[in-house]
This record gives sequence, structure tokens and C-alpha cells, in this order.
Amino acid sequence: MKSFRKELWFHTPTHVAFVKITRQVAECVSESGVKDGLVLANAMHNTASVFINAAESGLHHDHSAGLEKLVPHEPIAQYRHNDTGEDNADAHIRRQVMGREVVSPLPTASLISVRGNRSSTASSMAGGVSGCW
Amino acid sequence: MKSFRKELWFHTPTHVAFVKITRQVAECVSESGVKDGLVLANAMHNTASVFINAAESGLHHDHSAGLEKLVPHEPIAQYRHNDTGEDNADAHIRRQVMGREVVSPLPTASLISVRGNRSSTASSMAGGVSGCW
Amino acid sequence: MKSFRKELWFHTPTHVAFVKITRQVAECVSESGVKDGLVLANAMHNTASVFINAAESGLHHDHSAGLEKLVPHEPIAQYRHNDTGEDNADAHIRRQVMGREVVSPLPTASLISVRGNRSSTASSMAGGVSGCW
Repeated sequence: MKSFRKELWFHTPTHVAFVKITRQVAECVSESGVKDGLVLANAMHNTASVFINAAESGLHHDHSAGLEKLVPHEPIAQYRHNDTGEDNADAHIRRQVMGREVVSPLPTASLISVRGNRSSTASSMAGGVSGCW
Repeated sequence: MKSFRKELWFHTPTHVAFVKITRQVAECVSESGVKDGLVLANAMHNTASVFINAAESGLHHDHSAGLEKLVPHEPIAQYRHNDTGEDNADAHIRRQVMGREVVSPLPTASLISVRGNRSSTASSMAGGVSGCW
Repeated sequence: MKSFRKELWFHTPTHVAFVKITRQVAECVSESGVKDGLVLANAMHNTASVFINAAESGLHHDHSAGLEKLVPHEPIAQYRHNDTGEDNADAHIRRQVMGREVVSPLPTASLISVRGNRSSTASSMAGGVSGCW
């Protein structure tokens, strides 16, 4: 069995941010030489998510607003995790709601050609969007 | 390494629907000839989920009611994604809550025989239920 | 392809409980002899989750309180699933919010050494925490 692993690092300027990583994941797959199998894209921080969904700015706003309603950042003191000196308890919980990882089949090309619209293209590629909560 | 991939298509008459796909996934596994490994069942639309849980109509009602409470469909205008002309921002967000995919070990038969009740049988088979939000 | 599967059983004294299973999963990986590949840790009950997040008691309190707010246990009668004689509809729904499974790359050692803090070590190992809702 052939395998390949690569770490990707992202620095986000804001507390909550969305980074489209479809191209980087596709490049990893290409670099791996694997033609048939699975691609796993998983977040290595407990306050981040990798997920597949439409890479559309309005939707990113909606994800963010929805998470703020379900798991509000403030007041900080409502979370016992923050008694440790952190202020990111909400981000740990949001990562559960949004998920940690994506597993997607390879090859993706044929699936993409079958589908064709923007969001489906994203959904055909693992790691469509990485979120930082 | 042996691999096998198949697309399954489902047409749902309603906006929100649950489809039990356990049998279809089991047939894919059987068709693949793979005896030992993993099965991945993943949704190819960004407003759909594949998940494993009890295939019980009361629970499906509860999932649906719970999602409506957490991520209401209306008013449509509360979501920026819907400014694009869509009305399905809620469905994109619900898919995150419910998850996109299931990865389950093969073979499943021995696990099923160990367990034995209805919901556990469903949980032993990948792709117990597919949801459309 | 080499594969290995093992069932782990946990008995929790309380309705909602968190069990850190990092060591057990690491032992399974060691026992398997697999040096390169994937580890899947998945919950075999529909009211349980396996997830990776900080194994910190304050955060566990926050997860539990957050789930109680989003998917309250009582009143029991608000859930149609409970008409079947069960009282665990909330636990079925909470498992969707928290997720069912974790897929993580092997080997994990190099990732752990790269990172170094407690929660990242947990996130490098599949099956950091198992939850029972």
C-alpha cells in the first residue's frame, strides 16, 4: 500500500477564519502519486476544523453567525475550561459541531466532471474549507 | 490494495428527508469483494449527510425538529448565503451538525452478531441513514 | 495491506461521561504492528461518540453543559423517539453533534514531537476522548 503524508500550516489574522484549502489538498494528492484510495484531511488543532462545504463568503458568514448563536464566545466566564486561563472554550466546542476531518475517495476527477457546479466541485475534493474557531 | 467505488443516487420528495441506505451500502461491500478493510460512505452534496444512527421514525422526527430549532429554515433572509438566490443556507449548516460521512470497519458481520439489537445492527453497517436538509 | 481490529468496552457509571481512550488506542496501534496508514476509532453505540479534543475536566463540563442547552434531556416527552419507551432521544442527537468516529494518520509520533502541548498531543492520537450521552 502506498501512503503519503504532509503537514499544511495556516496562519489566520482573525479569531474566526475560513481558509479554502482545496488546491493545497489536490496538490498533496498529486504529489503522492496515489491514483486510487482515500484522502484524509484532518485538523491538528483542537480548535480547528476541516470540512467540505460551499466556499461562498455569505455561507461563511452564516456558519460564523450560527456558531456564535449556538456556542457564544462571550461571556468568557461561562466556560469552566476558561478557568485554566484560556479564552477559547467556545472554539473547542465549535470544532465538534463543525467536525475535525474529512475522508474522501480518490480519484476525484471523474466525480468532478460528473457534477460540475461550484459547490459540488468543492465537495468532490477533500478539505474544501478549513475553519479556525 | 483492493478498492471499489460506486455512486448511489437518491431522489427525495421532500425538502428534509431520511433514507435508510444500510442495504445499499452492504450490497456495495458485497459487490466489492473486499473482506477486510474500511468502508467510506460520504455525501456528495453539500446539503446532505450520511450518518449512522437508529433508523427509527420517531428519532427522525426528533432530528428534524432539533435541526429546525438550532438552524431554522425561515426567515430565509437571515442568511447571507441566501442573498445569492438560494434558500438553502440552513441545509448547508445542518449538514455540518449532522456530519458528511461515515467510515466503518469491515467485515461487519461479526460485529452485528455480537450486538443484536436493531439500532446496533444499523450502527454496525456504514451508511445507516442518509439525510437531506 | 495489513489490518487489525479490536473492540474496546467501557462501562460508565453516569448517564453522561467522558473517558480518555488515548492510551488504549495507542496500544491497539502498537499491537497491530502497523507503522504507516490510518487508525479509525469509532463508537459502536448510537448514543456514544469518539472524538479528539483536549482531555481537560473544565472542557468536559462545558461540552456537557453545551449539549444540555442545545439538546436538553428533559422533558423526556418532547422527543417522539421516547414514545418507544426509551428516554435517550437526546443522546442519539447529541452523538450527531459530537460525531461518531475519528480517523487519524499513522505514525503519530513525529506529529506529537512537532507539537508538544497537552491538547495537541491528544489531538495527534486518535480516539482522544470517548463520550457517552
